[in-house]
Amino acid sequence: MYQTRQRRLINHLQTEQNMDVALITSPTNIYYYTGFLANPHERFFALAIDTKKDKTMLFLPSLDEQAAKEKAEVTELIPIDDHENAFDKFRDSLGKVDSFAFEKSHVTVMRFEQIAAYFNNTSFTNIEPFILSERLTKSTKEIDHVKKAIQITEEGLAHTIPKIALGLTELQIKAELEYQLTVLGSDGLAFDTLVLSGEKSALPHGTAGERPIQNGDFLLFDFGVNVNGYCSDLTRTFIIGEGTEKQSDIYNTVLAANEKAISQVKVGDELLNIDRAARDFITLKGYGNYFTHRIGHGLGLEVHEKPSIHNENKELIQPGMLFTIEPGIYVPKIGGVRIEDNIYITEDGGVEVLSSYPKKLTYIPI
Amino acid sequence: MYQTRQRRLINHLQTEQNMDVALITSPTNIYYYTGFLANPHERFFALAIDTKKDKTMLFLPSLDEQAAKEKAEVTELIPIDDHENAFDKFRDSLGKVDSFAFEKSHVTVMRFEQIAAYFNNTSFTNIEPFILSERLTKSTKEIDHVKKAIQITEEGLAHTIPKIALGLTELQIKAELEYQLTVLGSDGLAFDTLVLSGEKSALPHGTAGERPIQNGDFLLFDFGVNVNGYCSDLTRTFIIGEGTEKQSDIYNTVLAANEKAISQVKVGDELLNIDRAARDFITLKGYGNYFTHRIGHGLGLEVHEKPSIHNENKELIQPGMLFTIEPGIYVPKIGGVRIEDNIYITEDGGVEVLSSYPKKLTYIPI
Repeated sequence: MYQTRQRRLINHLQTEQNMDVALITSPTNIYYYTGFLANPHERFFALAIDTKKDKTMLFLPSLDEQAAKEKAEVTELIPIDDHENAFDKFRDSLGKVDSFAFEKSHVTVMRFEQIAAYFNNTSFTNIEPFILSERLTKSTKEIDHVKKAIQITEEGLAHTIPKIALGLTELQIKAELEYQLTVLGSDGLAFDTLVLSGEKSALPHGTAGERPIQNGDFLLFDFGVNVNGYCSDLTRTFIIGEGTEKQSDIYNTVLAANEKAISQVKVGDELLNIDRAARDFITLKGYGNYFTHRIGHGLGLEVHEKPSIHNENKELIQPGMLFTIEPGIYVPKIGGVRIEDNIYITEDGGVEVLSSYPKKLTYIPI
Repeated sequence: MYQTRQRRLINHLQTEQNMDVALITSPTNIYYYTGFLANPHERFFALAIDTKKDKTMLFLPSLDEQAAKEKAEVTELIPIDDHENAFDKFRDSLGKVDSFAFEKSHVTVMRFEQIAAYFNNTSFTNIEPFILSERLTKSTKEIDHVKKAIQITEEGLAHTIPKIALGLTELQIKAELEYQLTVLGSDGLAFDTLVLSGEKSALPHGTAGERPIQNGDFLLFDFGVNVNGYCSDLTRTFIIGEGTEKQSDIYNTVLAANEKAISQVKVGDELLNIDRAARDFITLKGYGNYFTHRIGHGLGLEVHEKPSIHNENKELIQPGMLFTIEPGIYVPKIGGVRIEDNIYITEDGGVEVLSSYPKKLTYIPI
């Protein structure tokens, strides 16, 4: 699989961009092309795919060499000790390069200048549009990892809900949920877990705190895990004990918006239709000003990737896309509801809702 | 505190660099200068400190405006909606700028070009050396956050050790430890928690897995938490049940190296002495080839920051520095031991070992 991806990249560079060497430094893209996932912190970590010599070289901290030997599908591993000059070694290994294709929104100005200083008369072109278009389409093999991540996410939540009791704080509930996720075999969290209760559930970017949950609270979970590099991203909202009519109206409006948006997903349609289906309905119900964000985003190796699903995006829905649908209504003083699912467009154009945690309004007994 | 920092930055720009506007985009540095900590994901997030107009403007996603109102010490908040063009708004708010001081190793080539396209005849200079030198010196107020982070770290470990039993996997132990850390009030993990047992403890960058712990294993914990943005970073290694003479020799060599390194810390000395004190001793004991990394690194708002403590760094030890000391010996097939403490050089030049979790070789009964 990794070699096929490398081959497609080499073909693209040779036929479309006429480039010598792809220089890939984002750990996520290095994983995508080699199967080796690492966090180099501040150390030098780069994959060079030389189209002329037909060679792939992975420059990495010596510390990671052993792990890379087992995983990285590359022609050559080039370990760099902490006391070595990474740029010397990089230049010496590559020799003369006429043109680099690099990741323009990953490489910093500093790193760019450091590398450019070692290569004279070398041109640099952005390779990201190609890599992102490759990553936009997920194979069933990639989706298997996402499905596993979603399974862990949903089981973790199912194990946590019965343990919720009056007096527990958001932080304690978060700790319990994350405990379950780790024990269930996640490789890590996809992002910082949100557990928000009461008025705080109206903050789309709030963080769990010392607030104990109370009767009548909305309790919102937005979280996900990583499995083999792939992310899940699920949101469910509950009511603690007894809620008001108003709360149930807000909840059911979001739920209907979620379902309307999902039923709007059709291969070949513009992405904006998905957002508008939910937004129009929420507006009709009088909550338009309280749905303050786009309806969804792509996910995969990153929890936010292409496509962005907002009400002006005219890109078309394509086979292989994986994205969230997550309408929300956030009313100050009352709280917020968001219901988020993960949607996959299969290779033959079918619409598969990968997440299956129940969405009907649920009151957690206390 | 934040306004004092802004004032120092403005003075520096006016007197040393003759710059108009500091453009700060790293969330960590924005927090350092405003007190507002946020993760903008892919959205535009920037602090502009205008030295001529004596004004600080924080450009941020609308989503985060409410939270910023409570925390950010700036003259003006400029929220940006998802459908707005952030660069238009940025240029219009700033007006004409002759010179930007920016973070060269944070800003990507893409972002740099996007911003530069909006400003003609504007020069760009790196501001990072100044900011890093400011952040190198930690005040007692900052150290209070670090102390709290270390306290949670050590309590979390103390609560976890008694729960360790034969048959538990690395992942289950990690889940228990992280549960404790969350409940104890950490704001998040400082980095991915390492729980490594048996032979795997010899991988400085290994990850916890499904391996159940066994009698005679080394069990290594390397972890830390965040409190108000500040990190702890602690490593302790134990033996499960009964160990061999060899294991106790490895352990006690690392422990003695850790203590020799700490006793070497003196204001005004070169940092390399710290590394060499440990390295010479480990080499003398015959394990020189198995101590494969530098002895330590600075920490603070980031878990790896300046200074780097390796055997060629001639920078001097200064008041206000905060760093780790973490010698290790990693013997393939047997396992690894690392013992890591956090050291603070007080404002009057004293050496304070902030971590206090016991280091004497401990066998966990099973």
